[in-house]
Amino acid sequence: MTLGEFDIIARYFAGHDRGRDVLLGVGDDAAVLDVRAGHKLVVAMDTIVAGVHFPAETAPEHIGYRALAVNLSDLAAMGAEPAWMTLSLSLPQPEEAWLSGFAAGLFELAERHEVVLVGGDIVRGPLVATVQVAGWVEADAWLTRSGAKPGDMLMVSGVPGEAAAGLAVIRNAISDREAAPLRERFLRPQPRVSLGRRLRTIAHAAMDVSDGLIGDLEKLCTASGCSARLDVERLPRSAPMRKLFDERTCLEYALTGGDDYELIFAVPPERVATLTNGADAGVPLTVIGRFVEGQGVQCLRDGRPWRLERSGYDHFAAG
Amino acid sequence: MTLGEFDIIARYFAGHDRGRDVLLGVGDDAAVLDVRAGHKLVVAMDTIVAGVHFPAETAPEHIGYRALAVNLSDLAAMGAEPAWMTLSLSLPQPEEAWLSGFAAGLFELAERHEVVLVGGDIVRGPLVATVQVAGWVEADAWLTRSGAKPGDMLMVSGVPGEAAAGLAVIRNAISDREAAPLRERFLRPQPRVSLGRRLRTIAHAAMDVSDGLIGDLEKLCTASGCSARLDVERLPRSAPMRKLFDERTCLEYALTGGDDYELIFAVPPERVATLTNGADAGVPLTVIGRFVEGQGVQCLRDGRPWRLERSGYDHFAAG
Repeated sequence: MTLGEFDIIARYFAGHDRGRDVLLGVGDDAAVLDVRAGHKLVVAMDTIVAGVHFPAETAPEHIGYRALAVNLSDLAAMGAEPAWMTLSLSLPQPEEAWLSGFAAGLFELAERHEVVLVGGDIVRGPLVATVQVAGWVEADAWLTRSGAKPGDMLMVSGVPGEAAAGLAVIRNAISDREAAPLRERFLRPQPRVSLGRRLRTIAHAAMDVSDGLIGDLEKLCTASGCSARLDVERLPRSAPMRKLFDERTCLEYALTGGDDYELIFAVPPERVATLTNGADAGVPLTVIGRFVEGQGVQCLRDGRPWRLERSGYDHFAAG
Repeated sequence: MTLGEFDIIARYFAGHDRGRDVLLGVGDDAAVLDVRAGHKLVVAMDTIVAGVHFPAETAPEHIGYRALAVNLSDLAAMGAEPAWMTLSLSLPQPEEAWLSGFAAGLFELAERHEVVLVGGDIVRGPLVATVQVAGWVEADAWLTRSGAKPGDMLMVSGVPGEAAAGLAVIRNAISDREAAPLRERFLRPQPRVSLGRRLRTIAHAAMDVSDGLIGDLEKLCTASGCSARLDVERLPRSAPMRKLFDERTCLEYALTGGDDYELIFAVPPERVATLTNGADAGVPLTVIGRFVEGQGVQCLRDGRPWRLERSGYDHFAAG
């Protein structure tokens, strides 16, 4: 059967637009949103392309989930509370099973974070999904990349590198028992929204890690006008990674692998305990270094300068 | 030379983010926007794909312009004042001439309407451009599709059909003197932002015409729970169209051709004079019918029921 654009919207994407900010949702020329007193609006927009950001054969549930997850990760890095999104979906043909799966993955994550879908566009074309997500942050403070100060501790959430390991597991069809959690880490990144909300008044700076830890940390350092010393041996270790990959590969994934969607952040030393007390047990928060005067990132291993050859991912430079 | 993602942003898309609402623009994980007291936020998101929404060989200036124009048209239909946008651009390879042209077209229109670019994403992939535009509307009233009432006059801005004629001119490489203004109408649609602002307190309903006059009018009627009688002979006539196309084709373009980005709107009879007095001389506003009880659209020609076979464009149904 042939599904038209308006059938697709009605069947798969309408009806998820009831939320506290929504004055007019899906179905008109545009959506109308109320604004929250005492808050500022935070907006992020990210696009994922089949064969570039995920293997072309990825299940539609994971694609729908990812399209939102990568955006929520950006809001998390600002300390914002997600509120609503718009979706643009370009797809070659409207297959019901695919659309149903995509919508299931998208709304699974949306409902977890109480994000409503207020509008967007569905067009015929190559498989490309763009989400713009908007959230609210208290007017007195939000996180940026540019607030890190010499003396701050460099911290990271989760276990960087597991997503890159998960992608390798998928590409090489590794089926060991240890492969499953890694695959999950790539396919279902967990945007650190509640962590970002806590960091808002504790951290000096934050950024999400999507293109590799070192490369993204370099950007944070540039924005903050300081340098970071990263103690490689303090990186959190992943048991499944160590089982499946040699140490060199584990380090490369941890330092340069993309798609982690963890947060790196700068915390004054006296606030580290406040942060780690009462933290979500499922999301380790690890001090992996310190911000210092200067510029760029210096890796140390057991106190000595140490270097990894590869650098972070750039969509075009890598192509 | 190889341009990276961040070089592209820095060179072509940064530096257009200074505006009254912008607290934090391009370059962090997300943008932070101030909200306007006494206003509501209006957001629209539209995507254009090479070979679907414009001929693949279209000059990049026109593509950049169009990516924003189709979105501004949606804001116009709500009576909103445009403020800021985010851009997602997927492109096969970063050619400097192409990027420079795209940015020139985008920012030409953005500056005309004082829209700033606060964020977005640039990725490698097939040529797809998505813009989300946001604007403000006074908290007491905005336009929708759903407010038309029996007795209201049905009006249209501009000359519907000229964009479809322009596309035919391009596809058939027609080079007559009359072809130039039509080509321009397709390549450079004029979003009716200032008209929308005037309509906000005058019209009962409005909608932008992007998929063909009859098809879009049907949607407006459905949303408003009434019917419209369209007097075909009252449609504004286009001298260049009549020179290049026979009468049947002119009517088909006017009633079903896409890409006009004009507004249709419902105005109580006693307000028509208020509206047309002092209107922009370059944008004709024409009464082409009337809203009545019932449902659907009925075309009349010299007072008698009349029918055109073709119906409006649907991306998937047409594919």
